[in-house]
Amino acid sequence: MTTTSSPLGLHRVLDPPGVLPQAAWRLDAGPAIARDEVRIRVDRLNLDAASFRQIREAYAGDPDKIRAAVLDIVATRGKMQNPVTGSGGMLTGTVAEVGPDSPLGLKPGQRIATLVSLTLTPLAITDALSRWDGQSEQVPCEGHAILFARSIAAVLPDDLPVPLALAVLDVCGAPALTRRVVTEGAVVVIVGAAGKSGSLSAAAARQAGAAKVIGVVPTEKEASLLRNPIAAEDGGAEGSATAGENQQSRPRPATIAPAPESPLVDEIVIADARDPVELAGRVTAVGGPADVTVVCVDVPGCEGGAILSTKQGGTVIFFSMATSFSAAALGAEGLAADVTMLIGNGYVPGHADLALDLIRRVPAVRKLFERRVAS
Amino acid sequence: MTTTSSPLGLHRVLDPPGVLPQAAWRLDAGPAIARDEVRIRVDRLNLDAASFRQIREAYAGDPDKIRAAVLDIVATRGKMQNPVTGSGGMLTGTVAEVGPDSPLGLKPGQRIATLVSLTLTPLAITDALSRWDGQSEQVPCEGHAILFARSIAAVLPDDLPVPLALAVLDVCGAPALTRRVVTEGAVVVIVGAAGKSGSLSAAAARQAGAAKVIGVVPTEKEASLLRNPIAAEDGGAEGSATAGENQQSRPRPATIAPAPESPLVDEIVIADARDPVELAGRVTAVGGPADVTVVCVDVPGCEGGAILSTKQGGTVIFFSMATSFSAAALGAEGLAADVTMLIGNGYVPGHADLALDLIRRVPAVRKLFERRVAS
Repeated sequence: MTTTSSPLGLHRVLDPPGVLPQAAWRLDAGPAIARDEVRIRVDRLNLDAASFRQIREAYAGDPDKIRAAVLDIVATRGKMQNPVTGSGGMLTGTVAEVGPDSPLGLKPGQRIATLVSLTLTPLAITDALSRWDGQSEQVPCEGHAILFARSIAAVLPDDLPVPLALAVLDVCGAPALTRRVVTEGAVVVIVGAAGKSGSLSAAAARQAGAAKVIGVVPTEKEASLLRNPIAAEDGGAEGSATAGENQQSRPRPATIAPAPESPLVDEIVIADARDPVELAGRVTAVGGPADVTVVCVDVPGCEGGAILSTKQGGTVIFFSMATSFSAAALGAEGLAADVTMLIGNGYVPGHADLALDLIRRVPAVRKLFERRVAS
Repeated sequence: MTTTSSPLGLHRVLDPPGVLPQAAWRLDAGPAIARDEVRIRVDRLNLDAASFRQIREAYAGDPDKIRAAVLDIVATRGKMQNPVTGSGGMLTGTVAEVGPDSPLGLKPGQRIATLVSLTLTPLAITDALSRWDGQSEQVPCEGHAILFARSIAAVLPDDLPVPLALAVLDVCGAPALTRRVVTEGAVVVIVGAAGKSGSLSAAAARQAGAAKVIGVVPTEKEASLLRNPIAAEDGGAEGSATAGENQQSRPRPATIAPAPESPLVDEIVIADARDPVELAGRVTAVGGPADVTVVCVDVPGCEGGAILSTKQGGTVIFFSMATSFSAAALGAEGLAADVTMLIGNGYVPGHADLALDLIRRVPAVRKLFERRVAS
C-alpha cells in the first residue's frame, strides 16, 4: 500500500475496484498508512440525521440492535455509509500518525474534525460502541480512521466549545464562497439570513466590503432574531459594540423593516422566498435587486425568487440542497435573466479558518449559532 | 392594459393573480398590445416532446381528439402549457405589431422564433388546427401570440433552412456561456462533443482562444463523426478547408485517439462520462485536467467525472438537464475540489446570433447539425 497510494484513496477501494471511495461498496480500513495518509484515533461519530433516523426506525429504537446495525455496516463496508440512505456523517478524533508526504499539515496529538463525508472515509471501530446509548446521532466510540492526501480535516480550536465549532464547520463552505464572489460596494441579498449558513454568509459579505446587505427571513420571529440576536431573549447580558439598544418596542411596518439596528444586515425583508414576485418586489423596495444573491434556506422552490431579486449581470449562489437544477436553469431562461448561477461548493480552500474567524469576531453570529446549537 | 404593463407579463396573469406567467393557470391572450409588447402572427407551434407524447398516448393517437385537446388547453389557459407535463415548447411566426416601447428590436414582417417557453407566452389559435394531422409535435396553425418586454425572440435568418436554424436556437445558450467563460490559452473539455450543444460549445471554445479542446464521446461511432463530420459518411462531397484528408483508414488505439485530424477538437477521448476515474484518467492522458469542462450530455451521473477532469481553480459548466444539484455540490466537497460550478443558463445576451454565426462559419458543426436534424 505504501508505494502506489492515490490522493483520492483509490488504493483503499476493495469492491468494486476502480471506483471512487464514496461509490465503493467496501474499503480497506487497515491501520497501516501510506506515505501521504494520516491515521486518526476516533472518539466520536456524528451520523447523518437521515441515516440515524432510518436505522432507529428499522430497529424500533432497540439500542442493542441499533448498535449492532452500525457495527455491522462499518465491519462490512470499512466505512460508515448507510446502505439505505447512502449517507454518512462526520467524525472527531485525534491525529495518531502522519505520513511523511501528507499535504494536510496535521501533527500528532491535534484534535480534528473531518470535513469530508464518512461515506468515503476508511473506518474501524474497536470498542463495540459500548459507550453509545443508540438514542442519538452522536456516537462516542473508539477506533481509527484514515485521511487521504485530498481529504479535508479542520483542527478544532481551543477557544470554542466543540459543538459550536462543529456547527460552524458544517456550513463553512457558504461564507467562504460568498467572501470570494462578493466585491466591494456590492448589494447582497441573503435568503435565510437568520440561519447558520445565512448569518455566516451575511458576515462574510460585510467582510468583503458589501455596500448593503439585505437579509430575507420568512417570519417576524426570525426578523427579531436578526434585529437583535444578542439582546432579544436574554436581556443582552453579554453586551456588544454592534448590537445597539434594544429596539423591540418601536412600532414597525408589518412586512418590511428598515433595520439600521441589525448588527448583521442593513435591511430586513420578511417575505416568502418561494413567491418570486413578492420577494423581488420587497427586495427592490429596500435597495435591490442584488449584485449577489445567496440562497441559504433548505426549502424547495426558491430559484425564481432568487433569480428575479438579482440584477442583470449579477450572481446567484445556491447553497440549499433543496435547489432544483432544472428549475434554476429554466427559470433564468424564462425570465430572460442574464445571471451567473453557482452551485454552492462545500469546499473552498481556507473555508474552516474563515468561518471560525467570523464566529470569533462577530458576536451577533456567534449568538445566533449558540441559540441554534442549544435548541 | 396599456398603462401598467410589466416587462415580465404580470399584467397578463388572470389566475391566480400575482404569480409569474409561467406559474399561472390562465393568461389573458387578448390581441391588443401594451406599449412594450409585440404581437406575433403564429404559423407553427413546436410542442415539447414530452408534452406531445403525453397527449398522443392519452388519446391513443386519435387525431381529432389530439387536436381538440390542444385547442382546449390553449382556449382554457391562454397559453400552450400541458397541465400534466407542465411543459410547453416554442413557436415561429411573423411580427404583426410592435409597441412603441418594446425593447426587443423587432420590426413588422420579420420571421421569428420565440426563445422563451410557450408555458409563459399568451397564445390564441384561430384555425381550429385544421392543417395539423396530430401525428407530430410540429403544429402548423394560425393565431397570435404576445411577447413581453423581457421575452426573447430570434429573427430567423434568410440563409439557413428553418429546421436547421431552430435546432441551433434550441441550444444556443451553451456556446454563448462557453464563449464567456473560456479564456485565451485555456484547456477545455467538452463532454458530449459530437452532439448539438457540444459541437457548438467546442467551436465557441476555439473562438474564445482555447489552447486545447478535448472532446469526450461515449463510442467509436461518435468519435468518427467528430474526426470527420463532413466526409465520414457521404464521401466528403461538400469539401471543407478544415476537414483535411479522410483519416478513416489509419489504425487507431482503441480508447484514446490523438486527433489533429478533427476539425472541431484537438483531442478525442472515448470514455464513459459516468465513471469519474476512467474519464479523468483519459482526459489527463491527452493534456487535461481542464481549465473549463462543459457537460453537454443528457445522462445522469456525470457530475463526479466532470469535477475530477477539472483543475483546482477551474470551472465546470453543467448544461445537461440530467444534472443533479446535490451530486455536484456533494461530489465537489467529497473530492476536495476547488472548482466553480455553473448552472447552464439558457439565456446569455446575444446567444442566438453567436450560435447562428458559428453554424455559418464552421462547416464541421453545420454538418453535424444537418445529420442530426435529418435523422
